[in-house]
Amino acid sequence: MEIYTNIPEDLKQVVLERIKPTVAERKNLIGIQEELATEVKAAAEKLGAHDVLVKMVGSAARGTWLSGTHDIDVFICFPEETLRKELETLGIAIAREVAKLAECVKDCHAEHPYLNIVFKGFDVDLVPCFSVLSASHIKSAVDRTPFHNDFVKARIKGFEDEVLLMKQFMRGCGVYGSELKTQGFSGYLTELLIIHYGSFENTAKKACFWKPGEIIDIMQHSRIQHQESLVMVDPTDPKRNVAAALSLDKFCIFIDYCREFLKNVEIKFFFPPCFLPLRDKEILQRLKNRKSALLAVFIKTPNIVEDILYPQLYKLEHSAAVLLMDYEFSVIKTGVWSGKNETLIMFELISGTLPNVKKHVGPPVWVKEHAEKFKEKYERTEEVFGGYIENGRYTFEIQRKYPVAKELLEKQLIHCSIGKNLRHSVNAGFKIIENADICTLKDPNFRVFLSKWL
Amino acid sequence: MEIYTNIPEDLKQVVLERIKPTVAERKNLIGIQEELATEVKAAAEKLGAHDVLVKMVGSAARGTWLSGTHDIDVFICFPEETLRKELETLGIAIAREVAKLAECVKDCHAEHPYLNIVFKGFDVDLVPCFSVLSASHIKSAVDRTPFHNDFVKARIKGFEDEVLLMKQFMRGCGVYGSELKTQGFSGYLTELLIIHYGSFENTAKKACFWKPGEIIDIMQHSRIQHQESLVMVDPTDPKRNVAAALSLDKFCIFIDYCREFLKNVEIKFFFPPCFLPLRDKEILQRLKNRKSALLAVFIKTPNIVEDILYPQLYKLEHSAAVLLMDYEFSVIKTGVWSGKNETLIMFELISGTLPNVKKHVGPPVWVKEHAEKFKEKYERTEEVFGGYIENGRYTFEIQRKYPVAKELLEKQLIHCSIGKNLRHSVNAGFKIIENADICTLKDPNFRVFLSKWL
Repeated sequence: MEIYTNIPEDLKQVVLERIKPTVAERKNLIGIQEELATEVKAAAEKLGAHDVLVKMVGSAARGTWLSGTHDIDVFICFPEETLRKELETLGIAIAREVAKLAECVKDCHAEHPYLNIVFKGFDVDLVPCFSVLSASHIKSAVDRTPFHNDFVKARIKGFEDEVLLMKQFMRGCGVYGSELKTQGFSGYLTELLIIHYGSFENTAKKACFWKPGEIIDIMQHSRIQHQESLVMVDPTDPKRNVAAALSLDKFCIFIDYCREFLKNVEIKFFFPPCFLPLRDKEILQRLKNRKSALLAVFIKTPNIVEDILYPQLYKLEHSAAVLLMDYEFSVIKTGVWSGKNETLIMFELISGTLPNVKKHVGPPVWVKEHAEKFKEKYERTEEVFGGYIENGRYTFEIQRKYPVAKELLEKQLIHCSIGKNLRHSVNAGFKIIENADICTLKDPNFRVFLSKWL
Repeated sequence: MEIYTNIPEDLKQVVLERIKPTVAERKNLIGIQEELATEVKAAAEKLGAHDVLVKMVGSAARGTWLSGTHDIDVFICFPEETLRKELETLGIAIAREVAKLAECVKDCHAEHPYLNIVFKGFDVDLVPCFSVLSASHIKSAVDRTPFHNDFVKARIKGFEDEVLLMKQFMRGCGVYGSELKTQGFSGYLTELLIIHYGSFENTAKKACFWKPGEIIDIMQHSRIQHQESLVMVDPTDPKRNVAAALSLDKFCIFIDYCREFLKNVEIKFFFPPCFLPLRDKEILQRLKNRKSALLAVFIKTPNIVEDILYPQLYKLEHSAAVLLMDYEFSVIKTGVWSGKNETLIMFELISGTLPNVKKHVGPPVWVKEHAEKFKEKYERTEEVFGGYIENGRYTFEIQRKYPVAKELLEKQLIHCSIGKNLRHSVNAGFKIIENADICTLKDPNFRVFLSKWL
């Protein structure tokens, strides 16, 4: 086993200075949390919901939030026997009462409806849930969160800085966040890693040797097999993998990042330099150097949350790549970018055109019936250049249906596997942009994406 | 089993009228054979080789030769106990004595030296051989021929027309001839097929259902397994497959031809229309229609016999195609043509150029040592566009070494697997011709080849 150098204490301090909330920040947050608790309790009382409990959950409640983030999760816990309908109506009513004090209110919907408000500059989720006996008896997905909170709170004292270091390190690496756009590490997962391995340094060192199928079971209570790259058995629910959302690539990117960091312990891993938006000239230069073909499917960004949008974008990205490959275009890579107005699915191809002639290999001559049918079909087709026998098989040179990738996408994209919401946008009209025409897209965020992707 | 229509008697007669030697032709041939036998015997006597026998073998001797062909095989048979050296010296001396009467003499070499002469307009091989006890005790490959002759002569009487029909049919199909250029059916193989199946018609009908691995063992004496498509166990030597030279494709082309013929019994299968040499305009039109890339390796035709030249050409054709594919060029098809002066190995490609960028996929990140070495290597390389992790594997976009197929062949063809004789020609210099430049080649035979190939 390779011996990596230890991480100098002063480096950690330099990082923490930049990411650890100050005493004032902390005090402010606690004040806001208390205020919110009081408001929720009052609203519940006012609406006759006397048996409702208010719980502060999430990193803010556990002292593991990064300075500068302003997220508070307030859970409005109803007794287990409450009817689902009543929880939804009354829960939202309470939340709406509190929201009267907010600068901004957004109606959200996971398994239940909940409110997202901006309250004194904080981004606050007001989430109704059931108070259940244990995390394995939840009635709704969100019911689990209070158990996570309790588990972590009971064990994280004294390790908060390690969690902060790891979160910032993962941010630098681009793997922090379990939302479906990122498919990385959730805050809870990060905390469990620190609880399990004891420190940021030890986690990073151990991660260097991770392999897909890595299992961490803090409570030693799992009894089922998981297929994911990393399995962090939920200490509060033996059936659940906390790392289920982590993709293979993000798992590997993290492993790689840990190795690089430990080979060369530097602050830049926590705060990597920003990518600058590519200028037109730079785009053109890169295209010229690569000499590949660039295609982008351009649609209007649908008005849906990212957790719904991204899975559908990734699905279409994959499905369109398969379409291109089915028609013999060689795909070098694909990518997805979505901004406020424009959404793009990008393809880099070996070539955007193919010859008219396409070789179509049929069955072996000696598989008589099959072979004769094949031959008959293609002999009768007008658009055939020629036919011969090669390696014992009937082989016809036929007219390629789509010699131009752009035309293929224009005609066939709508037949790809497209999620319901995205389908709407695609049907409303899409455009295929090729090569240098990508410069017509000026959004600086897109240009930053391009700077990494191209 | 499909029922094919029978072949009308009058069709066979029409064909035979055109291919069966006339009485005068036959008489002339017999006369020439007798004359040659006398001359060889006299020469042998003159040189003191009193125990030499003269044998007429081949189709001329068996009455199965096609009108218009003028081939006579004269075997000069020495007693088995003759020393190899003596056979070679004395054999050639006898042949050379006979050759004094010839219009033209050529020194040839198979396992032994022999002479090919033109005698009164006939193409005559004068071949020294050993008289052995049986075909399984031969001392030299040619010793087998007299046994073949005896076997066929004893059984072919009355079936000569059937052999002629089959030979002409195979000619029309392009599968007649066992030389290494054609890799088709030898005359002996054709005769054995007729002996086995009883007629041209029955052979054609049975062939429709052939599969690779088809075994015909007239004497029921084979005890070994063969790998070839068609196994015709030599009736005179149980270990030998008479059809060993038949390629899979020629085997299949014949099957296909039989099916087509029996579906539609027409004389054109015996005398297919000639392909006309393509004119420049036609070449250009075809290239334009196909929109593929054409490349030809052009060398000076080496001064060697076809049986040596073609295997080396096919080997180079295959090896160069593998080279192109190794460098990611997609090969649609390949071809070989060799004329008196010019020899060409042709490649049709999806595209003659590829982008500069080449995707190079490495080991999975978790195969630590391996993966780290790979990453280190490419990170240090200057000619790298970028690197990322995809499907868990390190992936680098590197500078493609040969983005142009022509340059790849120019630089790397010499490292292909090239036979000794061809190597000479390649080393002496080759040229790569692209696309429309193929029109610089005016040889009408090449243009005929192109008409079929392109």
